[in-house]
Amino acid sequence: MEKSTILAPPGRSELADARTRIERYAHRTPVLTSTYFDHLTGANLFFKCENFQKVGAFKFRGACNAVFSLSADELERGVVAHSSGNHAQALALAARLRGTRATIVMPENATAIKVAAVRDYGAEVVLCQPTQEAREGETARIVEETGASLIHPFNDSRIVAGQSTAAQELLEDVRELDSILAPVGGGGLLSGCALAAYYHSPATRVVGAEPAAADDAARSLEAGQILPARPPATIADGLLTSLGELTFAIIRDHVERIVTVDEAAIVEVMRAVWERMKILIEPSSAVPVAALLQGGLQVRGERVGIILSGGNVDLDRLPWQT
Amino acid sequence: MEKSTILAPPGRSELADARTRIERYAHRTPVLTSTYFDHLTGANLFFKCENFQKVGAFKFRGACNAVFSLSADELERGVVAHSSGNHAQALALAARLRGTRATIVMPENATAIKVAAVRDYGAEVVLCQPTQEAREGETARIVEETGASLIHPFNDSRIVAGQSTAAQELLEDVRELDSILAPVGGGGLLSGCALAAYYHSPATRVVGAEPAAADDAARSLEAGQILPARPPATIADGLLTSLGELTFAIIRDHVERIVTVDEAAIVEVMRAVWERMKILIEPSSAVPVAALLQGGLQVRGERVGIILSGGNVDLDRLPWQT
Repeated sequence: MEKSTILAPPGRSELADARTRIERYAHRTPVLTSTYFDHLTGANLFFKCENFQKVGAFKFRGACNAVFSLSADELERGVVAHSSGNHAQALALAARLRGTRATIVMPENATAIKVAAVRDYGAEVVLCQPTQEAREGETARIVEETGASLIHPFNDSRIVAGQSTAAQELLEDVRELDSILAPVGGGGLLSGCALAAYYHSPATRVVGAEPAAADDAARSLEAGQILPARPPATIADGLLTSLGELTFAIIRDHVERIVTVDEAAIVEVMRAVWERMKILIEPSSAVPVAALLQGGLQVRGERVGIILSGGNVDLDRLPWQT
Repeated sequence: MEKSTILAPPGRSELADARTRIERYAHRTPVLTSTYFDHLTGANLFFKCENFQKVGAFKFRGACNAVFSLSADELERGVVAHSSGNHAQALALAARLRGTRATIVMPENATAIKVAAVRDYGAEVVLCQPTQEAREGETARIVEETGASLIHPFNDSRIVAGQSTAAQELLEDVRELDSILAPVGGGGLLSGCALAAYYHSPATRVVGAEPAAADDAARSLEAGQILPARPPATIADGLLTSLGELTFAIIRDHVERIVTVDEAAIVEVMRAVWERMKILIEPSSAVPVAALLQGGLQVRGERVGIILSGGNVDLDRLPWQT
């Protein structure tokens, strides 16, 4: 696909195509409610459980849409990405399901368990020095040598369209939502939510939530240009990346605001969700819930959708255990 | 209610009445599936998520049915139980919902958090020495003085009928189950499942699962009489109690067998359920899953319902953390 197409916001038909493309492969995740959190917020909350998605995170939606929209010619040359997070596993699984080859560039200091998980999905892992430069260099080399399609984790129209399916499903399952909240890292999920609401429920406002310790999206929106993330200092390790050109433009045009929350609130709210809802969520998923409980976002009397982005955590060491 | 009635197995109409009585108050919990566990067992597994039930356990069903079946006269005198587990909170909440008074006798070495949880539901807590004799003596004294109705946690027809509603719902949601698996402690849940299958799906076999370290139910069935639990030695602290006269009779007549599993299997399977299904279950809930994965119970090709009994765990210290 041409670079200009990849960086154009997906339209109504691309969102609908993504929906059709992934429905055989991705789980239609359940929407849970909680009397406890409703009581605390004075609102009706609807939790879209992407922690129950394949590979444990919404990322599978985007990767699946991207891989399944490749041409026969592209499929023959495979896909490549650099990622040490959920995108790596998501792309590996999507490639396997489509019968194509995935190569994932990972930093050599990635944990053995993450490397093994990606290999278990059938991808080839190429290790490199743990710098952004080395990762991008190695990825570019593979693209050059093999002609593989680079699948960026968020700055890609196909990825954004794929992530939008979570909010599309939510808007179908729960009528008349006043707001949808989603965490923001690179912005793929948040921009997908924003477009889903824009096309399917324009009265629904979309709000992003991010750690105050990684508030580059909030600062970028305020500044009117993409500002880089500060050195990482948040437990919500899915939200460390900065916005891309594509996601910045969509969020600027369609997201009402971005609320920031502090680290203690993220950990406390994550634990409360585990205890009260009996589901595992990763710190990133707690961020939008914390925006309601401790971030000052007022939703009393509203119907609010919240995307719980994923549930991949290290069960040997939980954030509240020091 | 007369003691003879309380100790008579509930019939078809009592099961139906329980269903109607609690439906306004108890959650109709979801049924989840897992590609991962299906693959491991070669079966189709259907997990009935009582960890999502009110107070975090199936116990609310029985307590709710018992309290809501009391007469106006009985309601005026309140209810009483001795319990330091999920039954205490379940009864406290059911009493509050019905507008009657609950008194819970708890051992003075119960953790402060458990006592606080029961008080939060509006019950009066009476502390006593941590012996069975003291608990029963104190409870009898309260019954004597106040005329309150004693609600036993499992050896009570109303409780068994209430617990049966979990399996009744499961049998409605999932057609043609070959088996239903449930953990067994005092036997309220397992005997409820057995009666639900007996009346509504007689071709479905019901199997109990219990820790080898607390195998009194398996030994009792074999011996043809109730044998006491050995000194408690299992992490599945919901399954320490022995069967009662009522539950023993139902299980003897309607449960095909009881499978035992060792402690290491319980912990390993509990962790696997957390990691793969992203839900919190307590050790007792892992016992029937462990019966499939490591207890030698063969279900290849079958459709199997599993009751995940509850999700109340101490998040400060998980069983796999030493």
